[in-house]
Amino acid sequence: MILAGGAGERFWPASRAAAPKPFLRVIGDRTLLDATAARAQRIATRARVWVVCGAEHERPIRAALRLPSARVLVEPERRNTAAAVAFAALRVAAEDPDGVMLVLPADHHIPDVRAFAAAVRSAAHAAHAERVLVTLGVTPTRPETGYGYIQRGAAVGAAHPGLHRVRRFVEKPDAERARRFVRHGGYLWNAGIFVWSAREILAEIARHMPELHAAFEPLRGAGARLPRASVVRAYRSAPSEAIDKGGMEHSRRVWTLPVSFRWSDVGTWESLARELGVTPGHSRQLAGSELAFDDRGGNLVWGQPGRPVALLGIEGVAVVDTGDALLVTRLDRSNDVREVVKALKAQRRSDVT
Amino acid sequence: MILAGGAGERFWPASRAAAPKPFLRVIGDRTLLDATAARAQRIATRARVWVVCGAEHERPIRAALRLPSARVLVEPERRNTAAAVAFAALRVAAEDPDGVMLVLPADHHIPDVRAFAAAVRSAAHAAHAERVLVTLGVTPTRPETGYGYIQRGAAVGAAHPGLHRVRRFVEKPDAERARRFVRHGGYLWNAGIFVWSAREILAEIARHMPELHAAFEPLRGAGARLPRASVVRAYRSAPSEAIDKGGMEHSRRVWTLPVSFRWSDVGTWESLARELGVTPGHSRQLAGSELAFDDRGGNLVWGQPGRPVALLGIEGVAVVDTGDALLVTRLDRSNDVREVVKALKAQRRSDVT
Repeated sequence: MILAGGAGERFWPASRAAAPKPFLRVIGDRTLLDATAARAQRIATRARVWVVCGAEHERPIRAALRLPSARVLVEPERRNTAAAVAFAALRVAAEDPDGVMLVLPADHHIPDVRAFAAAVRSAAHAAHAERVLVTLGVTPTRPETGYGYIQRGAAVGAAHPGLHRVRRFVEKPDAERARRFVRHGGYLWNAGIFVWSAREILAEIARHMPELHAAFEPLRGAGARLPRASVVRAYRSAPSEAIDKGGMEHSRRVWTLPVSFRWSDVGTWESLARELGVTPGHSRQLAGSELAFDDRGGNLVWGQPGRPVALLGIEGVAVVDTGDALLVTRLDRSNDVREVVKALKAQRRSDVT
Repeated sequence: MILAGGAGERFWPASRAAAPKPFLRVIGDRTLLDATAARAQRIATRARVWVVCGAEHERPIRAALRLPSARVLVEPERRNTAAAVAFAALRVAAEDPDGVMLVLPADHHIPDVRAFAAAVRSAAHAAHAERVLVTLGVTPTRPETGYGYIQRGAAVGAAHPGLHRVRRFVEKPDAERARRFVRHGGYLWNAGIFVWSAREILAEIARHMPELHAAFEPLRGAGARLPRASVVRAYRSAPSEAIDKGGMEHSRRVWTLPVSFRWSDVGTWESLARELGVTPGHSRQLAGSELAFDDRGGNLVWGQPGRPVALLGIEGVAVVDTGDALLVTRLDRSNDVREVVKALKAQRRSDVT
């Protein structure tokens, strides 16, 4: 179940309402969405790949992934992940009452697909056998303040090697706490990748998110041909919450599988720069760019073919030239690109947002 | 006599071989060349305005200034200012043996044209009456390291109020010396604006620049219809020197007129930023730009219409987007834009140089 509902605003100006982050070719020559679908197909046949997305992205996603319309769940409004998960779990449960779902965001980067697939299989085995909600926990490689953390509890035992109980979820920490988490060793990044049976997550939603449960209850058992109007009604009354915050933090049935493969949510220009190997003194440019001069390095350049970019005395900066807009941002400020998008929207610049 | 032979490479990517700095509209809505011609016409009728330039700029300059071809002296090769001055002085002397010339670069910024014209008239009076070479000396307003300095000597006397002898010319100083010059009070910026009779500058060239003299001697007395081949020969053997360094530093007949009007050679993006009022926290953008977001300020933006620019965490930077090339430079490094042009030429990027 690929969640492709995010706006990816922090990737402006490359990410737009009409073609958000999952559609970008930022690492390698595939879009993040294509790479995500390829990962999903290491676990399941294409016939079992689903996508949740907004109406404006239904066609391009179906075209890109060659999915039948029944596999694309269109959200009538943008909510957070809890609504998407509830919607998806209802549809999966209707098709396969024992179905186990892998929930994965459409715009993450995981280069080692084998390690990923192996981890998901372990998680799916536990989810099926023990009726638990499993979240992948990525072993931190740096004191990142941009991610939430999971404190792992005791190992669950020999039947499920590697799996741990979850002691608690921790919101994005400040730098000092993040350093302590990494030193401590018992903390994992919350990657937002979940494995559970549709039935169990629906039960946990009923238990811990009554509003969301009430909103989607009318859809239960409706089968593949859900009336559009009932979906619209469900979303209209659904609260906007994240599934990990709203549901999993309160559940007693949550396990985590610590993994140590390379993972990034490619959330900002800074995190993309890291994935592409930008380091002090060493710049990287995306395909098609022409970085003609760069005396300091440590920059990320997304330029346009035939339009050379020259950087003089510049370091630690992303330059993103999409042809119709230009962003120059300090990499360590790239989390605030949202503010730029907000300002442009306030200026009614829908042409470039 | 407007010298329009410079390349203005430090103004890349706005300044190009085909349309260098004098053709740019960087301050107000006129080109620097138009503004220079307007200044010249405060002193002389249009019929007495001359331009020295390269062959590739002859047509656009004649069109812009509506000059007859006899008033545009085409240099077959790019030399420094000494050759341009020798060429120009020969032509002026052929038309008017007593002619006094104002030599002024085509790409400077002097907003107060009245003060400028008054100063030039004083200088011209002295040049005519005393057969001296007069250079305007701008009272420094900051310890600028990008300009050469003139140390003034004694006042020449009541017949020429304001005029001083020159003690010495000083090359671009380091920051410490520049601060001493400003504190001292007896130092002026060498603006490269000269007033002299054609006859006298030719005599000084004969005295102090024998190679240059020899190169141009065959052109003497040739009248308005100089054979092209003889100009080519003269330039081929002419040394590449600046008139102030090669000629005036050695002359005993040099006076200076200290002036305190605002003057800039608009030599770099940094100096343009200063002229346009960029200060810490306050950005400026050139006409047609759309600076849509700028949280720090202190930047200079030359953008393209319809292509918004967003700056996040950026200060003290120039962003120059010409449509076919993009420069991002620290303003305090903008003197090195030449290095960018050099690198692009080495990459055979004549399309953008």
